[in-house]
Amino acid sequence: MPTPDSSRRKFLALTATSALAACSKQESETAQEAPSRLGAPVSAYGGRSPHENATRLRPSTPTPEEASSLTPLADSQGIITPSALHFERHHSGVPDIDPDKHQLTLHGLVERPLTFSMSELERLPSASLIYFVECSGNSRSEWGSNKASTVQVSHGMASCSEWTGVPLKLLLAEAGIKPEAKWLICEGGDACRMSRSLPVEKALDDCLVAYGQNGEAIRPEQGYPLRLIVPGWEGNINVKWLRRIKAVAEPAMARDETAKYTDLLEDGKARQFTFAMEAKSVITYPSGGQSLSGPGFYEVRGLAWSGRGRIEKVEISTDGGETWQAAEVQEPRLPKAFTRFRMPWRWEGGEVALIARAIDDTGYIQPTVEELIAVRGKHSDYHNNGQKLWKVGADGKVTENA
Amino acid sequence: MPTPDSSRRKFLALTATSALAACSKQESETAQEAPSRLGAPVSAYGGRSPHENATRLRPSTPTPEEASSLTPLADSQGIITPSALHFERHHSGVPDIDPDKHQLTLHGLVERPLTFSMSELERLPSASLIYFVECSGNSRSEWGSNKASTVQVSHGMASCSEWTGVPLKLLLAEAGIKPEAKWLICEGGDACRMSRSLPVEKALDDCLVAYGQNGEAIRPEQGYPLRLIVPGWEGNINVKWLRRIKAVAEPAMARDETAKYTDLLEDGKARQFTFAMEAKSVITYPSGGQSLSGPGFYEVRGLAWSGRGRIEKVEISTDGGETWQAAEVQEPRLPKAFTRFRMPWRWEGGEVALIARAIDDTGYIQPTVEELIAVRGKHSDYHNNGQKLWKVGADGKVTENA
Repeated sequence: MPTPDSSRRKFLALTATSALAACSKQESETAQEAPSRLGAPVSAYGGRSPHENATRLRPSTPTPEEASSLTPLADSQGIITPSALHFERHHSGVPDIDPDKHQLTLHGLVERPLTFSMSELERLPSASLIYFVECSGNSRSEWGSNKASTVQVSHGMASCSEWTGVPLKLLLAEAGIKPEAKWLICEGGDACRMSRSLPVEKALDDCLVAYGQNGEAIRPEQGYPLRLIVPGWEGNINVKWLRRIKAVAEPAMARDETAKYTDLLEDGKARQFTFAMEAKSVITYPSGGQSLSGPGFYEVRGLAWSGRGRIEKVEISTDGGETWQAAEVQEPRLPKAFTRFRMPWRWEGGEVALIARAIDDTGYIQPTVEELIAVRGKHSDYHNNGQKLWKVGADGKVTENA
Repeated sequence: MPTPDSSRRKFLALTATSALAACSKQESETAQEAPSRLGAPVSAYGGRSPHENATRLRPSTPTPEEASSLTPLADSQGIITPSALHFERHHSGVPDIDPDKHQLTLHGLVERPLTFSMSELERLPSASLIYFVECSGNSRSEWGSNKASTVQVSHGMASCSEWTGVPLKLLLAEAGIKPEAKWLICEGGDACRMSRSLPVEKALDDCLVAYGQNGEAIRPEQGYPLRLIVPGWEGNINVKWLRRIKAVAEPAMARDETAKYTDLLEDGKARQFTFAMEAKSVITYPSGGQSLSGPGFYEVRGLAWSGRGRIEKVEISTDGGETWQAAEVQEPRLPKAFTRFRMPWRWEGGEVALIARAIDDTGYIQPTVEELIAVRGKHSDYHNNGQKLWKVGADGKVTENA
């Protein structure tokens, strides 16, 4: 893997004849003068600059309460997604919940059914961990031939936050889960009582009952005041506005684990409970809709993640997958979290086909969509972790692989 | 260090006779019903719940442009400070800067003076790292006898973000810094042109010219569009609204490195350029102004950080410093970043004196204020990294050590 020093050497070599060499040697006439008057005072709760305008992309739909919005990944930096820009997927809108009245009930096949208020939950042993959440419908556009023209549309249903809450295993131990309990039916407090079945084995591993996101209370559209976090598993099972967990012997066979979020195979049968989001990556810069201003130095940037563990390596191809070279992977590489990768690159001005592929610490290599289709057939467009290709035209314009 | 399993056993033992055992076994009558109507639609840029009200504390002052505001650490979770709640310290207010007109000029003792636009900087090799920023005046209240009654007042001028930007060493290499250049005068774009002198050695180590904070553009009050990040060093040298870096042989002896932010010793001489913020920790829960509802299980929580490297260990005393036990330290323990610590604890109902102390990977142990005063004398209230004691009264009320 390249060291920072080797990166520096590359940068210097690359820029010797690049756009940078054209930097003016004097301060430009057009530069903004430093102000001569006092600026704004200290404030209670800050907002972003009015010059910034990245937003979640919302569909044009008569039912925005049953819809999704997409994180602007082309504008993303680092591994934390601003809470204000975390993707959304609602099934009956964002409920307005009073945390002083909210409760979580744990019942069913347990020795001691328990109900917790928010203040009771907040007193318990806690943990804070950085995890991605990705909708299993993310990148569905890339399964067929009508591919998305921007990374916000193709991959914007993935985001990453620092989540804080109570390990679910502590609550289960306190309630005394019975041996015959194999599943937990987890129910949200939205109007549709969105429910999913969670295997007890995963609940006893690394799940959180989370009340915090990025250092403050979880945001309303992410489940305020309480969300189930199921690290590395498809977004839908990270039940928002969590109000009830029932221990049972068999899964609920709820709508969102039967009619939705299953993978229809060629023989007409469907794969169900394909929970873990496999290793995936995407180049966020340069990406569709952007434009390179001319030949010279660029830093190829992107995000990689795996629901199975840590990102071990990310490779980038500039020739459509013929040859690959290792990207620099930003530390810390946290398990089941976004991992930022970068590669110094000189664009010579011709047509280029950029692709990234992630390799996680299980040794799994992110496949092409064609490889996935060969196994699953054409109908299974959930759980698409295939590679994404961006074309750079001779004019510098970046487009999808149409 | 306790494993999650030993923590779980402690929790179970602790809660057997605790408030938790009083949890109702049926859902309470007062619990909020799940709604029967659609909630709010997807949105472009989210905000927090109207039920949340943590804010930065602002002083009552006729000059709020030359003031500070304090992060509500008692409400903090994990290691990321929400950008909206990052502490502020302004010397002439927050300027309104158009990023399309902002430039950074690098000149003085360099082979090639350079001026960069924001878009030129954003093209260069980048890095994203989680670092704390702490004002060297943080905890000044704790030096004397008039101690602060809340952790927001005593320690709220420390915050932690994921910063993204260009390593400063790359810009210096590109400009060709001359061997006789030993210092960089770094100037901000606020009305007072706040300036500080940075040793070249540190600039070539780990400094960033940052344009990103927590996944989006840096916030106006943190230096939009460009801030110098000097990992682990006192907040004031992390120059905001960065517009000029001049390489020089001697430091500027600017106002904020002579009249301010120096440590006046007993003999009338002042220590200058005491840059690194030494290892420090503070208990955020229970902390001053909070109240324990009755004997039983509590999780003692807090933050530790060191400008020298990683937090190795945090110890907690419940008897005013007589005996100490190891807290659990949340991974990842990142260098020069906030580190969250926690300890399961049973309050028996009597008077308790809670203290935390941090030990970093240099072996340095956070001292008491008395130990610091013995070395520095009484006049040096900047750079106070002394231990902070919270008293829990027999009535459960938490107060400062008056």
